[in-house]
Order: sequence, then C-alpha cells, then structure tokens
Amino acid sequence: MPLPQPELPEPAHPEVDSMLSRKFGKEIANYFSGSPLNRVSFLRPDHAFLSSAFKHPSANFLLFNKLEPLLASPTALHYAKYSDVQSIIGDDPFVTSEEDQIAEYNSTTYTPLLIFLGLDESKQGFKYKEHYKGQPYFALDVTPKLSVTEAAEKLIKDVEGKGLAFSKGRVHMSLRAQEAAIYAEARHLLDWNARNPFCGQCGHPTMSVNGGFKRTCPPKDASLKLERPSCATRTGISNLSFPRTDPTVIMAVVSANGRRILLGRQKRWPPYWYSTLAGFLEPAESVEEAVRREVWEESGIHLGRVVIHSTQPWPYPANLMIGAIGQAIPSGEEVNLGHDAELEDAKWFEAAEVREALRVGTSGLGEDAGPEYKEGGLRLPPKTAIAHQLISAVVNGFVSGTPMI
Amino acid sequence: MPLPQPELPEPAHPEVDSMLSRKFGKEIANYFSGSPLNRVSFLRPDHAFLSSAFKHPSANFLLFNKLEPLLASPTALHYAKYSDVQSIIGDDPFVTSEEDQIAEYNSTTYTPLLIFLGLDESKQGFKYKEHYKGQPYFALDVTPKLSVTEAAEKLIKDVEGKGLAFSKGRVHMSLRAQEAAIYAEARHLLDWNARNPFCGQCGHPTMSVNGGFKRTCPPKDASLKLERPSCATRTGISNLSFPRTDPTVIMAVVSANGRRILLGRQKRWPPYWYSTLAGFLEPAESVEEAVRREVWEESGIHLGRVVIHSTQPWPYPANLMIGAIGQAIPSGEEVNLGHDAELEDAKWFEAAEVREALRVGTSGLGEDAGPEYKEGGLRLPPKTAIAHQLISAVVNGFVSGTPMI
Ligand SMILES: [Zn+2]
Ligand SMILES: [Zn+2]
Repeated sequence: MPLPQPELPEPAHPEVDSMLSRKFGKEIANYFSGSPLNRVSFLRPDHAFLSSAFKHPSANFLLFNKLEPLLASPTALHYAKYSDVQSIIGDDPFVTSEEDQIAEYNSTTYTPLLIFLGLDESKQGFKYKEHYKGQPYFALDVTPKLSVTEAAEKLIKDVEGKGLAFSKGRVHMSLRAQEAAIYAEARHLLDWNARNPFCGQCGHPTMSVNGGFKRTCPPKDASLKLERPSCATRTGISNLSFPRTDPTVIMAVVSANGRRILLGRQKRWPPYWYSTLAGFLEPAESVEEAVRREVWEESGIHLGRVVIHSTQPWPYPANLMIGAIGQAIPSGEEVNLGHDAELEDAKWFEAAEVREALRVGTSGLGEDAGPEYKEGGLRLPPKTAIAHQLISAVVNGFVSGTPMI
Repeated sequence: MPLPQPELPEPAHPEVDSMLSRKFGKEIANYFSGSPLNRVSFLRPDHAFLSSAFKHPSANFLLFNKLEPLLASPTALHYAKYSDVQSIIGDDPFVTSEEDQIAEYNSTTYTPLLIFLGLDESKQGFKYKEHYKGQPYFALDVTPKLSVTEAAEKLIKDVEGKGLAFSKGRVHMSLRAQEAAIYAEARHLLDWNARNPFCGQCGHPTMSVNGGFKRTCPPKDASLKLERPSCATRTGISNLSFPRTDPTVIMAVVSANGRRILLGRQKRWPPYWYSTLAGFLEPAESVEEAVRREVWEESGIHLGRVVIHSTQPWPYPANLMIGAIGQAIPSGEEVNLGHDAELEDAKWFEAAEVREALRVGTSGLGEDAGPEYKEGGLRLPPKTAIAHQLISAVVNGFVSGTPMI
C-alpha cells in the first residue's frame, strides 16, 4: 500500500508580489525544507540561553533511538517534556559554561547527544532578551547505551506503554511537511555527531558543543595523565569542527528540441521505475559543471545550458540536493552507458508518457503504484522527491513557458 | 597595485541556442570554474589506467609546496614532467592494484600525495581504451618532509634555479581562468587529504586511494602486530571517505521596490569596502532557507522570494559558493545588526552608487582601487568574486529585466 503522500511545505516567507516572483514564478519548497523553527544560531554558544530554553515548560524534546524518531502517528512526531528527559540528561546540562565544559572534558564520560533545534516563534512560550521568543525545540538521543542504559530503557518502555513508537525505516516520508523539516534537522546532526567521535586531524576523541552544531578537539582529557598533543583544529577555523553537508546534483535532462526527457534506472529498482540522474558534486566544481560531468559519465549525453531549479535537504545522511534542468546539445543526444556503469538503463521519454506516469504511476521505491497504474507503464518517484518536482517542472512548462503536450 | 584581473571562464559547453538560454540568458561561469579537464572519475580505481597516464610523456605534474603551487608566471602554472617527479614518488606508484596497496598498508611509511586531476581532451597525448584520450594532469605534494625531505629539497632547488617560484598567498587570483580551475581542484583535494590523516569514526590513520579522491580506513596496518578494530566506514558507503565540500550561500539583497541593494562590511576590511552577505548553509536547510536565515541573522532584513543565480568553487579550503538574489518584503527592510554580531555595518545603497563603484572601485581586499576611484566612494570586490557577479547582475537587470539606472 502506498503511504499517504503529504502536501509539500509552503514557502516560509509571505508570498508578496515581487519582481523576483514575477520573473521566476513561485518558489518551490521541497519536502524536508520549510521548517517553522528559527535556529537563532548565534545563541548556541550561550549556555544561559540554552539552559533557560531547556528548562522552560514549553520546551519540546524529540527523542531518537538509533536515529529513529519517536512518532505520535505516521504523520506526526511526538515531543517529550522536560520531566521526561531529566533521567537521561540531568536537570541542566547547560549549568556551566561551554568553556568550562571543554576544560573539564573527560573522554570516558558518556553524555547523550542533545541538539538545540530552534524556536517556534508562532507559539507562545519562552522568551529571551528582547527579540527571541517562542517554544524551544531540542532533539535527544535516548539510545540505551553505557551509563544511560537503564534510564533509557525505562523511558522507552514508558513511551511505548502509551502507544507511541519509534519509526522504522523511511516512514518519515509521510510526516507532515513542517514535522519532516524538524526531523531532518535533528537526524542530520545526530548522525554527523555519531560519525565523528574522533578528530580527523589528530585522531583523538572529540566532544559536542554549540548545542550539537559543532564538535571540538579539547586540549585536555581528565582521563589522561598528560595534556593531549596539539591539533590544528584548535588554531583558526577548521571545517572538521562543523557539521558536514554534501552537495549533490540531481537533474532533469531535456532533449535539444525540448520535447523529450532523459531518465535512468538502477538495477535494484522495481520494474519500469525510472528517475532523474544524480550524483555528488566534486571538489572545485560549480553546480553547472557537476551536472554536465555526471550526465556525461552516467549516460554519455552532452549538456549545454544548465539552470538551477530548487534545492532540497536530504538527511540520509547529510545531503543537499541541488535540483537542475539541463538541455542536451543537438550533437550530444546519443546514450552511452559504458563510461560509469552505475545505471542499468537510461533513455529518452516523450513528454506525453511522462505526464501520464506523473498522473498514475508515482510512489515510493518500496510501495505499489496507484490504482490507475497499468503494468508495463512508466513509474516515477513520489512528490516528496525533488526528482518528481524536476520532471514535473519540465513537462509543465518551466523550460519552454508552455507545457509540452 | 591591483593585480591583473583575469577574464572569467567561458561556459565550457557550446553556446547553442536553446530554450533554456532563451528563457534564462547566458550561463555565468565564475572564476575557479571552467576546467578544461575531463575527470573521468570512474577510471580512478583502475591502476592500469592511472599507471599508463602517470608514465606517459605527455603527463603534466602540478607541484605544491605546503599548498602553494609552482608558477611559471603570475598568470600561469608550471607543469613538471615524469622525469622531474620520479625522485619523489618513484617510477610507478600504481604498479600494484589498489586492493593490494590497501592490504599492504603501513602507517609508518610516508607517501607524498598524488592526485589524478583529469585529461585535457583538447591536447594530443595519451590514449586509453576507446573513449579516453588527451593529456593527463596530476598534482603532487613535494613539501620536504619525512622520507622525501632530501629529494624534495633538491627538486625545489632545481625548479627555483630555473626562475620558477611557488606562489605566496592569494596570487592565484591572477591565474588565467582555465589554470585557476585546475589549481582549485588540486588545492581542494590536497587540503582535504591533509586535514584527514585520521578516521573520524575510529581514530586510526587513513590512506589516500582513488587517485587522491577518497581516503580509506584500512583493516590492517603492517606496522602493528594485530588487526585494527572494526570501523563503520568499512561497511557500506561512508561520507567520511569522500572529500568534503561545504555549501556556502552568498546573496545580493534587493529592496522590496527593487531599487536598492543591501551590502555589508566586516571590521577588518579597508574603509568604504562593502560586499554581499554570506554564510554557511546548515544541516537540513534548503539553499533558499539558508539565504533567508543568514540575511536575517546578519542584518535583520526579512526576505521573500530567493532565486539561485550561479555557483562558484572556492578552494579556501573547500567551499561551494551558491550565489543567490533575494528580495526583501516591504515590512522587513529595517537593518538590525544586533542578532549575530558578524558585520560592522550593513546598509542600503542606491543602484546608481553601486554602478559607479563597479566602474571605478573594484579590487581585491589587499589591493588599491583603480585610478579613477575617489577617496570616500564605495569600494566593491573584483570580478573574480561571485559577490561582484551578483551585484552586477542586480544593477544590470537580472531581477527586473531592465537595468536600474
Ligand atoms: Zn584534533
Ligand atoms: Zn576508521
């Protein structure tokens, strides 16, 4: 059965009539974007701020067990309250300053990850200084582990006793748009922290700071007799300390005459299922160059002009999908799968066939197509995927100004 | 004295008349993009390919000493030949397969970094299989260090004796466009490898593979008695093994009526020097959201519609600059520098003043403005900066379709 496909987020900004929207049309907000939270990133080092947000009765805690969030229903997250999480994280993990915590670092002490996600300013709640108000949101890792095993197991049993459950797999794709964006922020950061317990520069253990948005390589470790060796991440700004986001290009390819679209498929996909080509942007490429390289490597097609359409956060584990539309040059339309053997097939589709597939043949990878789908027809990704938005833009007139019928 | 400002790269693709170029105009190729090399990324694990490219008489080796490239002149790189580099890297570093090299890994052996950059297909030279030909390009780290100290010092003395010199600082900004792109690819990868000698997942030393485009956490180390502990990067795909590129947003902000531009300045910049706002994209943000967040955090301005204009690789150390134009909403034009204290000033400029500054007041940060510049007038970044391209696009009609005069 296909899961419900949620509506996409509305662009977060007021849809004022502007020169930009008159020239370029309405902004496309893709699934996993559209967060209602103000991250107030500059307040993250301020433990007075984090402490009062953490202890405020309006604070919401999204709980994760092995990177799976606690759900209230297939479309909504469940948020725990301060009293629920005290047994895991203590009364106030921000009671001392960040500086002091770094000075007192002990690599043998386990501290569950706690991420400050932001403030929902549309809701009554917390207030800090003049400008910052709303309900605070945090994410907390409650995976039973080391010193918190017992407390975490009890908490999990309690919430499951109330009929709540941690998600399994990609059920997140049915979350309401704003919930999906909050989940994506939390998952991306929990995963990045979990992948980087050691410093890539010096090999020593690191610690989470800045409300979960940085890791630092402390100069001392209370569990060792000696100071740790010097590390280049401590002098100047090091990108190893900041969360990693991998830019990925994904592109709808239009034929030189504008009437056909190139789609490809991987061997492991269900029969008749195709999508846009995609790949990682490499060091020192522009997005436009990465699009042309990936399309040539995977399909042999030579692209001319490339235009960026919209972008999508993708937290599996840490991608920024940059959606583009590229047009083949007239002499460069011949498919060749022999360069990079990633795709099982890539071929040109007429616009009419693609339009019909958008109507009857879209679904997630593991799901059945809709009831009107006929075996043998083209199948395409669901509208929560930017691939769907790109394909739809092409056949609905983004390129030509008039739909291709 | 201002250094010569090179011409920007031509878009690499043929400028065929296409629906996309008719609708969106000519593609902007920013400085550091426009590489002439085909990276043939899928051939990097193939040591038979890398070995014959490496030993071919047409192969070009860009040499780096502490991340500074060897120059032939302020506008051109110097390329060494196979016979120049043998003393540093041996007769054939690809003589055994990658698999065997990983199995024989020894963390106490120093191997200078060698990066395969790609093939220049416009030049006669090497040929591999049916499709892949041209001159091979490599980058090699010849920093005097450990086992290569003596050989590297001799090589450096030899090339300096010929009147060549390793660059100092940001002189790269005067390289010809295609040279700048080759340099950027090499520098980004050398730096990434140098920052990641240890595995962030397990803390053990890693080794460079795939022609310098991946690092792997080997299961054994010949210098240890025991096998190394298991590491999650060895099971499944791990982004820790791939080079890191940090997406950065940079944006020209237009007023609601389209007639003014918001620019900001940092305290350390020369007097009267302003530029666009910029900042890192955060986990689980779309580009459009990151632009709105950064603009609000740094200036208090609330943006509506955001459009992506073009992108630029920026190898200091590993950025992808995503250039955007955003328009303020009518009620959100008041400047407030009190949120994130990054800027010394941010203010609205009339288009006419900005057009004049583009004509007479552009230069690199450490350089003098041009001869027509009058003290007290607005100064702006040089055209090698995407900031310049964004500002120029705004006052030259990208937004409105007609230039703002
Ligand atoms: Zn370190
Ligand atoms: Zn490892």
